[in-house]
Amino acid sequence: MRPVFFLSDFGGEDPYAGVVRAVIHARAPGAPQFDLAHDLPPGDLRRAAYALFEAAPYLPEGAVVLAVVDPGVGSGRRAVAVRTRRLFFVAPDNGILTLALAEDPPLSARTLATPPGASRTFHGRDVFAPAAAALAKGVPLERLGEPLTPEALVRLPLALGPGPEGEILTFDRFGNAITTLKGPPPPGARLSVGEHRLPCLSTFADVAPGEPLCYTGSAGLLELAVRDGSAREVLRLRTGLRVRLLTPA
Amino acid sequence: MRPVFFLSDFGGEDPYAGVVRAVIHARAPGAPQFDLAHDLPPGDLRRAAYALFEAAPYLPEGAVVLAVVDPGVGSGRRAVAVRTRRLFFVAPDNGILTLALAEDPPLSARTLATPPGASRTFHGRDVFAPAAAALAKGVPLERLGEPLTPEALVRLPLALGPGPEGEILTFDRFGNAITTLKGPPPPGARLSVGEHRLPCLSTFADVAPGEPLCYTGSAGLLELAVRDGSAREVLRLRTGLRVRLLTPA
Amino acid sequence: MRPVFFLSDFGGEDPYAGVVRAVIHARAPGAPQFDLAHDLPPGDLRRAAYALFEAAPYLPEGAVVLAVVDPGVGSGRRAVAVRTRRLFFVAPDNGILTLALAEDPPLSARTLATPPGASRTFHGRDVFAPAAAALAKGVPLERLGEPLTPEALVRLPLALGPGPEGEILTFDRFGNAITTLKGPPPPGARLSVGEHRLPCLSTFADVAPGEPLCYTGSAGLLELAVRDGSAREVLRLRTGLRVRLLTPA
Repeated sequence: MRPVFFLSDFGGEDPYAGVVRAVIHARAPGAPQFDLAHDLPPGDLRRAAYALFEAAPYLPEGAVVLAVVDPGVGSGRRAVAVRTRRLFFVAPDNGILTLALAEDPPLSARTLATPPGASRTFHGRDVFAPAAAALAKGVPLERLGEPLTPEALVRLPLALGPGPEGEILTFDRFGNAITTLKGPPPPGARLSVGEHRLPCLSTFADVAPGEPLCYTGSAGLLELAVRDGSAREVLRLRTGLRVRLLTPA
Repeated sequence: MRPVFFLSDFGGEDPYAGVVRAVIHARAPGAPQFDLAHDLPPGDLRRAAYALFEAAPYLPEGAVVLAVVDPGVGSGRRAVAVRTRRLFFVAPDNGILTLALAEDPPLSARTLATPPGASRTFHGRDVFAPAAAALAKGVPLERLGEPLTPEALVRLPLALGPGPEGEILTFDRFGNAITTLKGPPPPGARLSVGEHRLPCLSTFADVAPGEPLCYTGSAGLLELAVRDGSAREVLRLRTGLRVRLLTPA
Repeated sequence: MRPVFFLSDFGGEDPYAGVVRAVIHARAPGAPQFDLAHDLPPGDLRRAAYALFEAAPYLPEGAVVLAVVDPGVGSGRRAVAVRTRRLFFVAPDNGILTLALAEDPPLSARTLATPPGASRTFHGRDVFAPAAAALAKGVPLERLGEPLTPEALVRLPLALGPGPEGEILTFDRFGNAITTLKGPPPPGARLSVGEHRLPCLSTFADVAPGEPLCYTGSAGLLELAVRDGSAREVLRLRTGLRVRLLTPA
């Protein structure tokens, strides 16, 4: 049995995530199930794409990743299952896999059919959970639906790289800003965002409380933080804002 | 071992849900445990009753459902274990099972005794978890306490039906309103609520962003939504508000 | 395999807790994993210390407790593994274990080394999860790092006792205030806090809605509550505020 790692924006106020767990357990009773996160901001595909990018390298080889942030549920968007070198992904084809697949490229993909009688608003339960359970039981990807060229998968207009130009990709719970720039930066570098110039340092403790800094986050991307505060609020940042790495001459 | 599906309003700021999981694991070590939801609005029995209604059909036959939304803990309210055709329920007898039992009627019930030394405020740990663990291990319901006529179980004044008259039962995380009306509605129907008349359609994508609609939700009940918005806020809805299904002549 | 019980302030918006679960599963595949709580207020060590105090007595003997509330991550604070009579703890050495160890004293402790290449901001993934997985697999504590005298572990300036003087230790989700006073109080006692004198009673139902009371909480400490309300807000309480138990002459 393959373990299933489940990410969504279902929150904990409704039993949506619980019902998905139940469907997987009913169809693949011995499969170990783990939550990746369920309080993602509703419909925020950048945040979800980053979460998968962040988590994927730490998931055991052969694991099934069920990722349901699905603002287009019930519309014409595809549902897909994707096999990479290391993992299986089951998700809406809305760009949520963009960053994970850029690091661990897709080897093959399938379009998941919507079964008759499926809800128009809860494909997590009726489309994605059954596919994840099938993969957990060892059903080959090829049996899950019609073939799809991996190149045809929807991608968000996001690219990670060394810079020097980049943008704010998303934020975390603490208000730290994650950028599209891959670290580590050269010694003495600073990060420019709006009117701010932040020193690139090692960790929060390298500045005084309330002071901003740039550092290489736990996923290897440059992040902006304010020690013991929210960079998002203090520096008035927003998703998509341009950043630039300034390296000493 | 029967799986245990656990629902509560304990949230994630305190270890209350964690302690319940620990007690179940200590008493029924191999029983698979799954969370249904733990961020239910505190003490909101309608929301909890709907959550159980929504989840129950997808739980595997013979599963144990532990449902602890318990504003009357420490008062005289009964603690109960209930067997239906498909499931076992362990819960305070405060109406939380109303909608689940209306669909899957109770076959037998038992009153759970409060053990000596039990906390007056945390029956989840001291009364409900031990009962759920016992059922998970296969202890017969009959051994859990004094018999109770299923008819004597407390019910909320809520009934689901085809309408045309109904009410707003509760809301979900996204601000969608769930009504007591069972779908699907006849073609061309509209739903009347306050001064609004909402078209009954298939899914969110059938209207423009910001527009309201009525559709059959994933639990089979008519729901009111605003695409990419909160119907609760935009239409100023509240629990208990009357709704009426208008069918074309 | 020992079960792992995991507590953090990682929340559910990011996959931090999920990544920790994945690392533990990858290194100790059969170990049962349970969440204690992950929405603790960020960096709130008193709240975390109380949560561990509250949960520990209900965890099965030999369980591994992974506790990651770590505002000083990346600074010089130690990472530790601690063995008590009943449990194993893996945590930053920042006082988070203060109350749990006061009840179940440490028998031995080890300093965890930071592996080369570890993130400076996510020791939950790179330092604590590997140690918890090792203990779950039965690796002896002695193999986890350099010996540390249990007396050298950092403690918060907090002591639980019968009073009559004490303070507000922390709050729970519902706004109930937990004090450092151990119950039960003598019959007829009242609790003094600011200008308020609260009757010590059995449970919420002993007062009318909106009325305050003092009672022995589920962890054995005196708590202050307002029935169907938030004592924190209604009585304008804050952490550290002095309380005094008034016993009848």
